[in-house]
Amino acid sequence: MRVDGREAHELRSVHIETDYLKHPEGSVLIQVGDTKVICTASVEDRVPPFMRGSGKGWIAAEYSMLPRATGQRNIRESSKGKVSGRTMEIQRLIGRSLRAVVNLEAIGERTVWIDCDVIQADGGTRTASITGAFVALSFALNKLYEEKKLSSFPVIDFLAAASVGIVKEHGTVLDLNYIEDSQAEVDMNVVMTGKNEFVELQGTGEEATFSINDLHGLLELAQTGITSLFAIQATALGEIAGKIGK
Amino acid sequence: MRVDGREAHELRSVHIETDYLKHPEGSVLIQVGDTKVICTASVEDRVPPFMRGSGKGWIAAEYSMLPRATGQRNIRESSKGKVSGRTMEIQRLIGRSLRAVVNLEAIGERTVWIDCDVIQADGGTRTASITGAFVALSFALNKLYEEKKLSSFPVIDFLAAASVGIVKEHGTVLDLNYIEDSQAEVDMNVVMTGKNEFVELQGTGEEATFSINDLHGLLELAQTGITSLFAIQATALGEIAGKIGK
Amino acid sequence: MRVDGREAHELRSVHIETDYLKHPEGSVLIQVGDTKVICTASVEDRVPPFMRGSGKGWIAAEYSMLPRATGQRNIRESSKGKVSGRTMEIQRLIGRSLRAVVNLEAIGERTVWIDCDVIQADGGTRTASITGAFVALSFALNKLYEEKKLSSFPVIDFLAAASVGIVKEHGTVLDLNYIEDSQAEVDMNVVMTGKNEFVELQGTGEEATFSINDLHGLLELAQTGITSLFAIQATALGEIAGKIGK
Amino acid sequence: MRVDGREAHELRSVHIETDYLKHPEGSVLIQVGDTKVICTASVEDRVPPFMRGSGKGWIAAEYSMLPRATGQRNIRESSKGKVSGRTMEIQRLIGRSLRAVVNLEAIGERTVWIDCDVIQADGGTRTASITGAFVALSFALNKLYEEKKLSSFPVIDFLAAASVGIVKEHGTVLDLNYIEDSQAEVDMNVVMTGKNEFVELQGTGEEATFSINDLHGLLELAQTGITSLFAIQATALGEIAGKIGK
Amino acid sequence: MRVDGREAHELRSVHIETDYLKHPEGSVLIQVGDTKVICTASVEDRVPPFMRGSGKGWIAAEYSMLPRATGQRNIRESSKGKVSGRTMEIQRLIGRSLRAVVNLEAIGERTVWIDCDVIQADGGTRTASITGAFVALSFALNKLYEEKKLSSFPVIDFLAAASVGIVKEHGTVLDLNYIEDSQAEVDMNVVMTGKNEFVELQGTGEEATFSINDLHGLLELAQTGITSLFAIQATALGEIAGKIGK
Amino acid sequence: MRVDGREAHELRSVHIETDYLKHPEGSVLIQVGDTKVICTASVEDRVPPFMRGSGKGWIAAEYSMLPRATGQRNIRESSKGKVSGRTMEIQRLIGRSLRAVVNLEAIGERTVWIDCDVIQADGGTRTASITGAFVALSFALNKLYEEKKLSSFPVIDFLAAASVGIVKEHGTVLDLNYIEDSQAEVDMNVVMTGKNEFVELQGTGEEATFSINDLHGLLELAQTGITSLFAIQATALGEIAGKIGK
Repeated sequence: MRVDGREAHELRSVHIETDYLKHPEGSVLIQVGDTKVICTASVEDRVPPFMRGSGKGWIAAEYSMLPRATGQRNIRESSKGKVSGRTMEIQRLIGRSLRAVVNLEAIGERTVWIDCDVIQADGGTRTASITGAFVALSFALNKLYEEKKLSSFPVIDFLAAASVGIVKEHGTVLDLNYIEDSQAEVDMNVVMTGKNEFVELQGTGEEATFSINDLHGLLELAQTGITSLFAIQATALGEIAGKIGK
Repeated sequence: MRVDGREAHELRSVHIETDYLKHPEGSVLIQVGDTKVICTASVEDRVPPFMRGSGKGWIAAEYSMLPRATGQRNIRESSKGKVSGRTMEIQRLIGRSLRAVVNLEAIGERTVWIDCDVIQADGGTRTASITGAFVALSFALNKLYEEKKLSSFPVIDFLAAASVGIVKEHGTVLDLNYIEDSQAEVDMNVVMTGKNEFVELQGTGEEATFSINDLHGLLELAQTGITSLFAIQATALGEIAGKIGK
Repeated sequence: MRVDGREAHELRSVHIETDYLKHPEGSVLIQVGDTKVICTASVEDRVPPFMRGSGKGWIAAEYSMLPRATGQRNIRESSKGKVSGRTMEIQRLIGRSLRAVVNLEAIGERTVWIDCDVIQADGGTRTASITGAFVALSFALNKLYEEKKLSSFPVIDFLAAASVGIVKEHGTVLDLNYIEDSQAEVDMNVVMTGKNEFVELQGTGEEATFSINDLHGLLELAQTGITSLFAIQATALGEIAGKIGK
Repeated sequence: MRVDGREAHELRSVHIETDYLKHPEGSVLIQVGDTKVICTASVEDRVPPFMRGSGKGWIAAEYSMLPRATGQRNIRESSKGKVSGRTMEIQRLIGRSLRAVVNLEAIGERTVWIDCDVIQADGGTRTASITGAFVALSFALNKLYEEKKLSSFPVIDFLAAASVGIVKEHGTVLDLNYIEDSQAEVDMNVVMTGKNEFVELQGTGEEATFSINDLHGLLELAQTGITSLFAIQATALGEIAGKIGK
Repeated sequence: MRVDGREAHELRSVHIETDYLKHPEGSVLIQVGDTKVICTASVEDRVPPFMRGSGKGWIAAEYSMLPRATGQRNIRESSKGKVSGRTMEIQRLIGRSLRAVVNLEAIGERTVWIDCDVIQADGGTRTASITGAFVALSFALNKLYEEKKLSSFPVIDFLAAASVGIVKEHGTVLDLNYIEDSQAEVDMNVVMTGKNEFVELQGTGEEATFSINDLHGLLELAQTGITSLFAIQATALGEIAGKIGK
Repeated sequence: MRVDGREAHELRSVHIETDYLKHPEGSVLIQVGDTKVICTASVEDRVPPFMRGSGKGWIAAEYSMLPRATGQRNIRESSKGKVSGRTMEIQRLIGRSLRAVVNLEAIGERTVWIDCDVIQADGGTRTASITGAFVALSFALNKLYEEKKLSSFPVIDFLAAASVGIVKEHGTVLDLNYIEDSQAEVDMNVVMTGKNEFVELQGTGEEATFSINDLHGLLELAQTGITSLFAIQATALGEIAGKIGK
C-alpha cells in the first residue's frame, strides 16, 4: 500500500472546475489530489515574430508556482529577476504538447497563451498542468469557433499527461505525490493523445538507471492513467468533447 | 445608482475563506465583488540582514497578479525580469500597513512573509489584499502563539483597507470596481485600525485635484466601509478575534 | 525648539537657482536647507507608445540620488542593475503631480522628461524635487510657447509640495529634515495647487497610527508651507509666473 | 539513402581528441560528423550550498554555443543577459546524466564543473556533449584518483548518448544531422549506461505523435549507436577505461 | 583659431571648488570650460573580497552622467538595467590612475570610493573626472591622516589628466571640447604624475591612424596642459599639497 | 632569459589556421604560444540603427573566454547575466581597430560581426584576437568581393597588434605571456597598420608609472613584433594579401 493508501495503478482523485475565472477565454481549476493548478487560455490576435506571415497560429505556455504552493516558501521568480531552468523546461513541455493536437493552420495568425499557475503543489504539477490546460484551451478555441472566427474546430485529438515512477519498496507506481516523487529512483512524464499515441516521453533516473523492462511497465501504467483522465476531461468539456477530432 | 446597482456608500459583497491552502501557516481567499486574492502568511525563522540582532521580527509583503487576472493578459513580471513600479508600491504599502498593528518585539527574530496573489481583478486589489492579509497573518501568528513559541499574542489591533474615490456623475463613492476606478478623478486608499486611526492614506488626483471638503467626504465613506470589514474579519477569525489587542 | 532651531511651522530656507545647466530646456538647482536637487526638464518630440495618436502630450519623471548624497554611500542603482521600490514610488509621484497642473492636449504629442537628481540629501528630497521640477517644467514649456510651438501656455496652476510629520516630543512639524524624518511616527507628503487643492496626499504611520485630528493639524501646516513655496517659485519664474493659469 | 549517404542505422564518424586544452583537469574535443564540441571538466574543492555537509560531491554542467557555430549567427546569451530555456534544458540534462554513473560519495565535497562549448553545430550537439563530457570527466576524476585524493575510482559505468528520430521518407534513423533534425517528426535523445540501462529518455513529437511500436524501433537504433560510442570512448580513455566500474 | 577662440596649446578655464558637499570625506566640483563634474571620495572600512587579508587598501571609481548632461537626453543606466561599455571603460581608467599615486599599504584595509558624476558635459569628462577626483581623494585621505588613522600621508605624487587630439584644419590641439572631440581623427587621453611620468596613455584613431611624430606632438601638448593642472590642484589643496610625496 | 627562454624582443610562435569552421564567412584559429583564439567574421545584411541610411557598413566585435580557458575556472558571463567591464573594453578595442583599416563606404549597409572566442589563455588574448580577426575579416570581405557584391576590395591596409611591457628583472619585453603579464609594472597594447601607423595605443601602469624613454623602448619593440605578424598574416591570406590596399 502506498503512503496515501492507493494501489500502484491508482490515480489520485481528479476534479476539473470549468469557467473558473471570468476574464480568460478558457479557464479551469484542476485538482489532482492536493495538487491544484489554475489553467487559463487567452487568445491574442497576433503571433510571435518568427510566425508572422505564415498563416498559422501558435500556442505558448507559461508556468509558475505561488511562493507558498509548497511546504517551504520559494522566492518569486519575478523578485529573482529570472525564470529557473525547471520552469522553462516545464513551460516548453506544456506548449509543445498542446501544439501536437491542434491544427495551427485552422487558428489563423493568433496566439493562444496558456498560463498554468500552481496554487498548491503535491507532486505532478506539470502533468496536471497539461491535463487542465487541454480543457481550458478547448474552451477558448470553441469560443472562437462559436463566434464564427474559425471555419473548423481546430482540436484534433484529446491530450492528457500522467507521471509514473519507480519508488523503493513500492516498485512501479502511477501518479506520484510529492513524497513518492522525492523518493523515486526513476521519474517519467508521459503525454498521450486520445489515439494512444505518445506526444512526449521524459524519463529520468536521477542517480539511477532503468531497463527496457522497467520502461514497459511504466508506459503501461501511464496509459491506464491517461485513459482515465480522458474520461474526466470529456465530462468537463461537455458537448465540446464531441467536436474534438471532427 | 452605480454601474453595478450599489449605493455610493455600499461595499461589494465580501467573503473570506480561511485555511484556503494546506501548506502556509495562514491562508485565505478573499473575494470583494469579482476581485479575488489569495493571501498567505509564511513564517520564517530569521529576519532580513538589517534587522539581525535587533530582537525584533519583520513582516514583508509581496503582491502579484496572475497574467489573466485582468481583461487583457499582462506579461508576467518574471518573464520581463523585473517588478513594476506599481507592484513595488503595493507591496511596500501592504507590508507597512500590517507592521503598524503587530508588536514586532513579541514575534522575536522571525519574518512573516505575506503573499497576495490576485487571481481575478475587478478594482480594489490592494485594499482587498490588506484586508485579507490581516486575517492570514493573524492565523499564522496565532499558530505560533498556540505552539507556545510566543509569550503574548502579538496582534494589537484590527486592520482593514478600503478604496474611495470621486467618479464623474456619481460623486464620492466607496469601494470602486474596475470601471469606476478607470473613470475616477480622485482615487484614495485608506488603511485604518480598529480604533479608527489611520495607518496609511494615499489620495491621488490623476490629472485632477480635490479640496479639503472632498477629503472629508472621502474619509467618512472610507471609515464606514472599513468598519463593516472589521466585522467580516472578526467572523472569519472566530475565537482568534478575541485575542486581538489583549 | 526643533533640532535646527526652527519653530514647528517653519520651512527651512529655500533657494531656487534657475538656468542651472546649459543643455536642458529648463533646469534649476533647488536647495531646501541642506537638501539640494538638480531638476531638469527635457522636451522630446514624441510620446510613449500607449499615448501615440492621442494628440496629447506626456510628462515622465525620473529621480535618483548621487551615491554619496547621504551620510552613508549607497550603491548606484545602475550597478545593482535595478531601480529600487522607493525610487519608483517617488518618480511615479513626481510625474502624476506635475501632470495634474498641465494641459496635456496643449502640449501636443511631446514628452517632457523631468529628471530630479539629488546631489545632497537632508530629508524632503521628494517634495523638493516636485517643487523644483515645477519651475524647470514651466521654463521648458515657456520656451516651447515662446518659440510658437504651442498655441497656449499649458501650465494651468502652480504646484508645490511639502512634508509634514509627527515627531516625538515636538508634535506636528513642517518640512522635516533627515533627523526628524528618521524619528517621525507619522510622515506625510502633500502636493497642492495654487488654488489650495490637493493633488497628492500620502500619509504613513510606520509602526504607528494617526487620528483625524492629527490629520487636520498636519494638513494645515502643509498648506502654510506650500503657500510660502508658491511665492518662492513665483520669484524664480519671473514673468513666466504671470502666464500660469491664463 | 540519407542526405549524407548514410544508412538508417549508421552513426556519423566520431573522433575524440583527448587532452585538448592545457588548463582543465580533463578536456576533449569531440567531433560527430561536422558537430564539434569542446568538453572540459574542472574540479573545484567545494560543493553548492544545498550539498554542504552532505559528504557528497556534485557534478554541474554548462552548455553554450559560439555565436557562429550555426548557419545563422546567434546573439550571445551573455549579451542578451539571460540563458535561453533550450540551454538550461540541455545543461540540466548533461548534469543529471553524468551524475547517474558517478559515485558522488567517493568524490567527497567537490564539484566537477562540466563545460560543453559547441564550436560547430550540425545536429546532435547535446548527445555529443554528453558522450564527450563523460570522457573529460573520467580524465579529471582519474587525475584526482592518481593524486591519491580519492580512495576509489568513482566512475561506476560507461555513459553515452545518441539521437534517434523519425524523418519523413527515411523512417527511423540514428544520429540525425541538422537537416534531418529540422525535418524530423519525432526526435528522441537517449542516454544509456554500459549495462544497457537507460539514464534519460526524451522523446518529442513537435506537432506530431508516435506509437509504442515507433518507440521500440527508435530505442533499438539508439542502443546500437550507443554501443559503438562506448568502444570509441574506451579507446580515447586508454587504460582509464579498465578502471570504470571496478 | 579654434571654435571657442583658444590657441592649440590652451586649456579651457579650470575651476575646482572644494568641500562641495557636506557628507563625503572629500568632494569637489571641477569645471573645465562647460564640463562640470562632481567628484566625491567616500571612505569605507573594508576592502573588496579579492583584497581581504592583504593588509592593503583599494580605490574604486564609478562614473556617471546625469541624463541631460548632454545636448540630447540619455536614458539612465539604472533604467536600462546595465552599465554601458563606455562607462565601464572610464571608471576602470579613473580607478587605475588614482591607485598609481597612492600607497595602498599605508591606507590599510579600507576602500576609497570615488564617484564622478558629470552634471554638464562639453568634452573631456573623463580627464576632468581624474583631475578632480585626485583632489577629492587627497582631501579624504588627509582627513583620515589628521584623525591619526593613518601613520603616513599616503598620496605619493600629484596626478592629473588631459585630452589631446588631431582635429581636421586645426592639427594637434589640447583639451578638446565636445565639437572638437566629435571632429577629431585622433583622440588621446593622457594621465601623468607630478614627476612627468605616464600612468595611462590611451590613443585612438577612430577610422584613422597616427604616426610616431604625431604621437610626439600630442604628448608634448598633453604635458604642457597637465603641468598647468597641477598648479590648479595645488591651489585647491592648500596646505595638503605640501604633504604629497612626503 | 625570460621564463620561457625567449629574448626580450622575441614573439612566441604564431600559427594561423584558416577556414577553421564551416559556417562563418571567415574563420581562423590563431595560436600565439599557448594562447588560442577562434576568430570568426559573419556578414549580416543590415547595420545597427545609428548607421541606417548612411550608406556605410559597420564592423562590430564580441570577445569571450571559455570558462576554463584559464588556470582557474571563470563563471560564464551568460550565467552572471552581464558582461564584465574588461570584456566590454576588449570588444570595443577590437571593433575600433578593425574599422580603421576598412573602407566602410565600400561595404555598403552591411555589418561584419567579429567573434573572438578564447579557448585557451596564456596572456595577450586581446592582441591575438585583433591579429586573427583581421585575417578572418579579410576572408569574409574577399568572399563578398568575389561574389561581386562589392565593387572594390575594402581592406585598405594590414592590421596587427602586439603587447609590450616592462617586467621586473627583465625590463622591456615583447609579447608577454600570462606569468610576465601578471608581474609587469607597465603593460601596453599597440595596434598598427602596414604603413607603420598607430591605430590604438593603450599603456597602463597599474600601481606604477613610466617615462617618455620607457615609452620609446616599448613602441620600438612593438613595431618589431607587429612587422613579423604582418608576414604571418600575409602567408595565411595567400592571394588575398595582394588585394589589400589596392
